[in-house]
Parts: sequence; structure tokens; C-alpha cells
Amino acid sequence: MHENPESGDEPSCDSAITLAFSVLGKRWNGMILSVLGSGVTSFVGLRKAVGGISDTVLAERLLELAEVGLVTRAVAEGPPVTVRYELTTAGAELVPTISQLGAWAKRNLQKASAV
Amino acid sequence: MHENPESGDEPSCDSAITLAFSVLGKRWNGMILSVLGSGVTSFVGLRKAVGGISDTVLAERLLELAEVGLVTRAVAEGPPVTVRYELTTAGAELVPTISQLGAWAKRNLQKASAV
Repeated sequence: MHENPESGDEPSCDSAITLAFSVLGKRWNGMILSVLGSGVTSFVGLRKAVGGISDTVLAERLLELAEVGLVTRAVAEGPPVTVRYELTTAGAELVPTISQLGAWAKRNLQKASAV
Repeated sequence: MHENPESGDEPSCDSAITLAFSVLGKRWNGMILSVLGSGVTSFVGLRKAVGGISDTVLAERLLELAEVGLVTRAVAEGPPVTVRYELTTAGAELVPTISQLGAWAKRNLQKASAV
């Protein structure tokens, strides 16, 4: 097989899929979005539901997910002050596909050890 | 809101979704599966298509994906010896959902910087 670096027709990963996994290929993000999709809104609730994540990492991920437009952070003046995290429309639109990934995993990864 | 650790009804991330992201929430895995789904079979072809991945990490990921039953590695005696990587049925079944993630990203993440 000849290689021609100038041909520009070598296969490469679809740019949209690369973009999708720039978010979802980062540990915890898929789970955080899924838990938000189930209606959990508080930081403590999220931390408990996404078992094993630290406060620091959860805070970092929520900030990043807000920066790419998938999560909103709303502060209600108190007392007590409460902070709610919610999916944006773009984030919510991802939830059904995440559920499909779960259904696929249930069918196909049940007997496998996690990577 | 009261917390009752014994109630067992606190929300937690769906176990199937946790399982899905034990594979897909690891950097490169989604892209590797997508590129395999597009018909690339050689190590070098995969490395080029999944831009930016090192030989070492690609080899490690392919091994892990084989261990969880998503990828097969077939060696054809030569000369020259050739090694082909392919999706299993379980891996191939994931490809349409990965395409959906791409379509979602194209609609929703285009203007955002990657996380």
C-alpha cells in the first residue's frame, strides 16, 4: 500500500466525533451529565451520585462543562445561599444518547471487567 | 432535606452508564472505536487516523479494548507478517451511537472550545 501524504485522502477520525470525545472522553463527564439529566441539581447530590469523584475534580468538571455550554450554575440568594446545576438545552439533548450507551454497555460489557 | 444513608434510595449514576464510560470516558477509546468502525485495520493506519496518539498509548488502548471484548487482533503469517485490528460484534454495535454523539457535537459544540 502506498502512502501519499499529499493526497489528503487518508482516513482520519471524523472531526465531529473528535469534538464529542473532547468532552465525553474525559473521565467523569459522561456520568456527571447523566446524573444531571436524572434531575440531581446540588453539588453534594452530584458528588454522591457520581461515586468516587472528589470535590475538587467535580468542581473542575462542572466549570468545564459550563464553559462548553452544557451546564448552567444558578445561585439563589439565601439565606441559605443555594447553588443549582442544570443541563442546558444542548446538554439535555445528549441524555437520550447517553442512555443508549448504557443500554449497549448492559448488553455487551456486563461480563467484562472495566478498562 | 434529610439524608438517610440507610434508605438506599439516594440517586446514583445508572450502573450501565457507569460501565459504558469505564470504556468511553477514557481518552482516545471513542475515537479508536470510531476509526475501526470506518474500516481502518492497521496499527499505523489507526495511529494516523487518531491524530495525536502515541504508539505506546495506542497499543495499550487496543489491548484494553480487546480485553473487554470490543476489538480483535488477528495476525496473518507472512512474509510479511501483518496484524489487523477489527471491531467485534459488540464493538460494531456501538458505532451508530458514536455517530449520534458526533452529530450532537456538530450541532452543539462547534462554537465551544474543547474541554
